[in-house]
Amino acid sequence: MRHGHITSVGMPRLASKPQAITASPIRRIAALLDEARRKSDIISFGGGAPSLPPPQEVVDFLVDFLKNNPQKSVAYGSTRGMIELRELIAQDLKKYWGVDYDPKDEIIIVNGGTEGIYLALSAILEPGDEVIVLDPTYLGYHEPVKLLGGRVRTVPVTVENGYQPRIEDVKKVISPLTKAFILLSPDNPTGRVVTEEFVRGLVDLAVEHDFWIVFDAVYKHISYGRPTPWVDSFKGARERTITINSFSKEASIPGFRLGYVTAPREVVEVMEKIKQYVSLAPDTPGQIAMIKFLESGIKDRYLQEVVIPTYRKRRDFMYKCIQEYLPEAKTSLPEGAFYFFVNIEEYLKAMGRDDEEFANRLLYRKSVVVIPGRYFGEMGKNHIRMTFVSEPEERIEEGIKRMSAYVSSYM
Amino acid sequence: MRHGHITSVGMPRLASKPQAITASPIRRIAALLDEARRKSDIISFGGGAPSLPPPQEVVDFLVDFLKNNPQKSVAYGSTRGMIELRELIAQDLKKYWGVDYDPKDEIIIVNGGTEGIYLALSAILEPGDEVIVLDPTYLGYHEPVKLLGGRVRTVPVTVENGYQPRIEDVKKVISPLTKAFILLSPDNPTGRVVTEEFVRGLVDLAVEHDFWIVFDAVYKHISYGRPTPWVDSFKGARERTITINSFSKEASIPGFRLGYVTAPREVVEVMEKIKQYVSLAPDTPGQIAMIKFLESGIKDRYLQEVVIPTYRKRRDFMYKCIQEYLPEAKTSLPEGAFYFFVNIEEYLKAMGRDDEEFANRLLYRKSVVVIPGRYFGEMGKNHIRMTFVSEPEERIEEGIKRMSAYVSSYM
Repeated sequence: MRHGHITSVGMPRLASKPQAITASPIRRIAALLDEARRKSDIISFGGGAPSLPPPQEVVDFLVDFLKNNPQKSVAYGSTRGMIELRELIAQDLKKYWGVDYDPKDEIIIVNGGTEGIYLALSAILEPGDEVIVLDPTYLGYHEPVKLLGGRVRTVPVTVENGYQPRIEDVKKVISPLTKAFILLSPDNPTGRVVTEEFVRGLVDLAVEHDFWIVFDAVYKHISYGRPTPWVDSFKGARERTITINSFSKEASIPGFRLGYVTAPREVVEVMEKIKQYVSLAPDTPGQIAMIKFLESGIKDRYLQEVVIPTYRKRRDFMYKCIQEYLPEAKTSLPEGAFYFFVNIEEYLKAMGRDDEEFANRLLYRKSVVVIPGRYFGEMGKNHIRMTFVSEPEERIEEGIKRMSAYVSSYM
Repeated sequence: MRHGHITSVGMPRLASKPQAITASPIRRIAALLDEARRKSDIISFGGGAPSLPPPQEVVDFLVDFLKNNPQKSVAYGSTRGMIELRELIAQDLKKYWGVDYDPKDEIIIVNGGTEGIYLALSAILEPGDEVIVLDPTYLGYHEPVKLLGGRVRTVPVTVENGYQPRIEDVKKVISPLTKAFILLSPDNPTGRVVTEEFVRGLVDLAVEHDFWIVFDAVYKHISYGRPTPWVDSFKGARERTITINSFSKEASIPGFRLGYVTAPREVVEVMEKIKQYVSLAPDTPGQIAMIKFLESGIKDRYLQEVVIPTYRKRRDFMYKCIQEYLPEAKTSLPEGAFYFFVNIEEYLKAMGRDDEEFANRLLYRKSVVVIPGRYFGEMGKNHIRMTFVSEPEERIEEGIKRMSAYVSSYM
């Protein structure tokens, strides 16, 4: 009756599903980074946290607010979040994406994109339901689906195709059990922004086969060329789309755990019910800060003058360095998000190593952190993910030179 | 195939369990309070949020930290929370309750007590498992148990017995399916602190029948006489107890959504895995503030000089007023938490109303907010919950005088 490997003598049983899910990729990345911190002169292409400070005006505003209204700053809020913030979010979504949402009924503030995904999946999944994701994809989709009793089906994407998914590949995995498709655009780990054509095809399939689209738009403002298509603006999409948004990347405030979800009012209602018992309410000080961020033009300036120029320069520079110093690597210039997903098969073959061994050895030998591609899915094998947000240009060059020196000795 | 009442035309199906849970009591309370805010001269015995400002030194510290380290203040943290904070928590628990916890493996920071409960139940419950709670009890236990596919069994407590549960009543509902008992002490809504004898008996039953004790200790420092027994300090309890703690009540910072859970390391490990996909990490600024709260003696001073004297005075005063102005009401002097749970059966009989109608009418007629007892369980019918934290003494008297005037007209 006991699970020997997890339960101590005398302890009652634990639930089986959470034991079956894996925490390992995230833990292994954390372990890599912990290890990295102990070494000197580490160059990190690892963690994907925003590396810029939050907008100074927002910090100043929050500091003043805390000083002048300490009790109000840390009071309980409602489960859906402050209506003032939801109204500003509705205006912001209208301005950028041309779509109208009712701030009262179609927007709910959540404790980060992670809670957004969890609540959305909780609101729609029955045990046995299937959820389609791309492969490779973000680490955080497979396990919550499994926790909720669902099953993941994958659609492969490859560097040869610029990591763009193809509708014909989606069709192959649709079944009567298909309940949702999760679309992340711009994407982690590939930096891909999907095409209008793909979204059109996906929405048609969703209508035809009656499934939800969970549109994860947490990187929506981190793009360097054309913006991501907005799923809700496609005919037929609105009543079957749940869109996940985060302030973490746009405002560089991941520690506040603050995001929001738009969805049909019936879905928001169910998500709110679940959220009452999962986290009760979003963070109050973070909401106060984000009201300032949205209401005063700070967001536009911060994105256009600080975030995008900084990240774009580093992206272009990293691309040049990869091409120059790692000529056998294959990658695709990211149109958004923070990452290059790099196929290093040629080097791995010569070295007789897999991508995980490569990442471990590279850290040990050259003090450079990269993330093994296999952590993002079966198709991620023989790849590595490299973020360009953590290091300035000269360190990007130095890091890639070290990688080059390391692989050259085998070629 | 569609749930007509919740799904719009064209919308794919939603999950069934979240639709089956109820959000109504919390919503109805929120609606009462919203209504209340629109009226003038409302006296609130309703919401149980701390009414004191957080400690000024903690606010000052956070303000300075934000000013001097804006980026660090809002950076991602790890899923278990900052190790510095966990170490201070371990020292604090040792000091107050004499129990040793390993800060690395037996403590996890959570996004408020609510997330603590949710993660704890997620870590242990299988569909079909039974969870025992007292009746009346906190609103937030039944629904997460149901969401996770479990079933709630209840043990009645009554004002005649000072709302103390009896071991023989617990025995009556234990079955082979019993997976956990949730114990809240000090209690919401009754203010009861359980006896050592009850905890001893409960732990013996948990050992004998192999179930978990989820000890909800969010009000642990809000007590006016003897402190709550600490479940973990009873022989045999440690390996089957998960303890939920919150900073919301102790530090008056509910808006930061910050608490922590102690449990056997195997449970913490599973909770961490689930938390990675539910909320990723706790709030960073809140953790910084709570490091200050714990490390510098502020907590002791704040509790002993501000929180407890303020609330105790109001408690004693409200007790006197209830006895004087509502002589037919029966209640029990709360030993902890924020609330009187008042049996008003005699008045309701005379009025021909139930407790919910009473609360609605009282607000409409006399602008006084109380919470209907039925929201806390079947046994709560004919009761009302009255908090003494929201109003100062003269307003407490005024409010109860209004209640008296209202019921007198029927007697």
